[in-house]
Amino acid sequence: MINFTKMHGLGNDFVVIDAINQNISLSSEQIRFMSDRHFGIGFDQLLLVEAATDDQVDFTYRIFNADGSEVAQCGNGARCFARFVRDKHLCDKEEIRVSTNSGILILCFEDDGMITVNMGIPKHKPAEIPILAAEESKFYSVDMVEERRQVDNFSHHVSQRAFGAVSMGNPHAVMQVHDIKTAYVLSIGAQLENHSVFPERANIGFMQVIDQQHIKLRVYERGAGETLACGSGACAAVVIGIEQHLLASDVLVELPGGSLKIHWSGRGQPVFMTGPATSIYDGSITL
Amino acid sequence: MINFTKMHGLGNDFVVIDAINQNISLSSEQIRFMSDRHFGIGFDQLLLVEAATDDQVDFTYRIFNADGSEVAQCGNGARCFARFVRDKHLCDKEEIRVSTNSGILILCFEDDGMITVNMGIPKHKPAEIPILAAEESKFYSVDMVEERRQVDNFSHHVSQRAFGAVSMGNPHAVMQVHDIKTAYVLSIGAQLENHSVFPERANIGFMQVIDQQHIKLRVYERGAGETLACGSGACAAVVIGIEQHLLASDVLVELPGGSLKIHWSGRGQPVFMTGPATSIYDGSITL
Repeated sequence: MINFTKMHGLGNDFVVIDAINQNISLSSEQIRFMSDRHFGIGFDQLLLVEAATDDQVDFTYRIFNADGSEVAQCGNGARCFARFVRDKHLCDKEEIRVSTNSGILILCFEDDGMITVNMGIPKHKPAEIPILAAEESKFYSVDMVEERRQVDNFSHHVSQRAFGAVSMGNPHAVMQVHDIKTAYVLSIGAQLENHSVFPERANIGFMQVIDQQHIKLRVYERGAGETLACGSGACAAVVIGIEQHLLASDVLVELPGGSLKIHWSGRGQPVFMTGPATSIYDGSITL
Repeated sequence: MINFTKMHGLGNDFVVIDAINQNISLSSEQIRFMSDRHFGIGFDQLLLVEAATDDQVDFTYRIFNADGSEVAQCGNGARCFARFVRDKHLCDKEEIRVSTNSGILILCFEDDGMITVNMGIPKHKPAEIPILAAEESKFYSVDMVEERRQVDNFSHHVSQRAFGAVSMGNPHAVMQVHDIKTAYVLSIGAQLENHSVFPERANIGFMQVIDQQHIKLRVYERGAGETLACGSGACAAVVIGIEQHLLASDVLVELPGGSLKIHWSGRGQPVFMTGPATSIYDGSITL
């Protein structure tokens, strides 16, 4: 029997398992079974809390997608990880250091119950993102097919879409839109995610700037489609907005699942993401 | 804190709550919260196990949809109800009688672990279904718009679709198709569900007859769209198939979520549905 906690960060939902006090060994097939929302538990990602492997960190943090594959990072998951180890009395520090597949992550508890994640230093060089471009630019552009549907036919036209690009450990493109509600998130998102300019594909953000400290954002995630809240996408949008002189260093990002506060003080500095993490229920399953 | 069990019958999934040994009072808002698959537990229906109100029955069985509304019956839920009261040692009888909003339901445990539900006597008169028709018929028909999509345009044509209709406590229309995989379940289902011929709308079944004792079935459920397994839809398909001289009295019904065995010995007799019920995990939530 495995004890677990179901949690979410802005609607991005997780099954979190203590693999320190339980002997846990899950196959890909078992993870896929558990991820099914009708036949299993249902989650976007499974988070494993494992013991630290050295004294530089407090825990090891492993993340699995619903298809059973292990992935490198998830910002919403990191906040839930921090809330879990505190609620389960596994750690009472104000700042927690965890090792992940993509390096050490630092998680801090705020006075208001929010959790801040150091999301690392963004990378701007085309080869680091990666984007196929001769030189770094604040505005890349590609030809996109745009489509208007009418009752009995389609009209197509080709237009240029300008966007910024950055790596937050994963590749992001972000474009400014006038109105987040009417933006063609699905059609443009699917085209740009798979565009040949992104050799490893990309997460595509659509950002409406309310003012220098406030944006609305929808993100078409690589391999997942539009999601309720993409933590690294919120960081990427703010970094790109600052680079394009649209935003200040502290920005409230409104996502469909809720809001995050993002802080970035500029090139060479890490991005800090602050937001909530919620426990929904405790469960136990026999596989 | 509320203890619950997550269960499914062929992928139709339920949160089942013992309201005998726990003091349970849920608002519609709390049910809607729990039903959300990202922010809550996630389920198709919530099942409450309540004490019997008289000595004719063993329990009271109440069913709530994800939107918080109380509904009259659910065949897949009834099997899970039976499995739950046995697994939780609330009752050790081989046959359980439960009162529901639509009358008394009888549930039987089979030797192979399957559960049989007496689904009641089907009703055939147009006013009982209800369908707007001058007289009862084995084949009703209405004009339907059919649509073929090509790259740059649609072609529409109007055709007559013939179907049988019956009430299993809720209105069903079932049409025979050549191949369940290519049937236009979504477009025809949505049109016929809301057609003016059905004053209370209808569940729409698409049945491929393999032989007299074996069909494949997809169901477009009223208010829900296509589902993994509709218990009353399986009963309706077999009743209509028998009325149309396509099927024998015992039929294996293959649904996307798994198989049910349906038995009907003809007019005036109840329909018996036999199938599995699976416990997935136990949980506890604080609202």
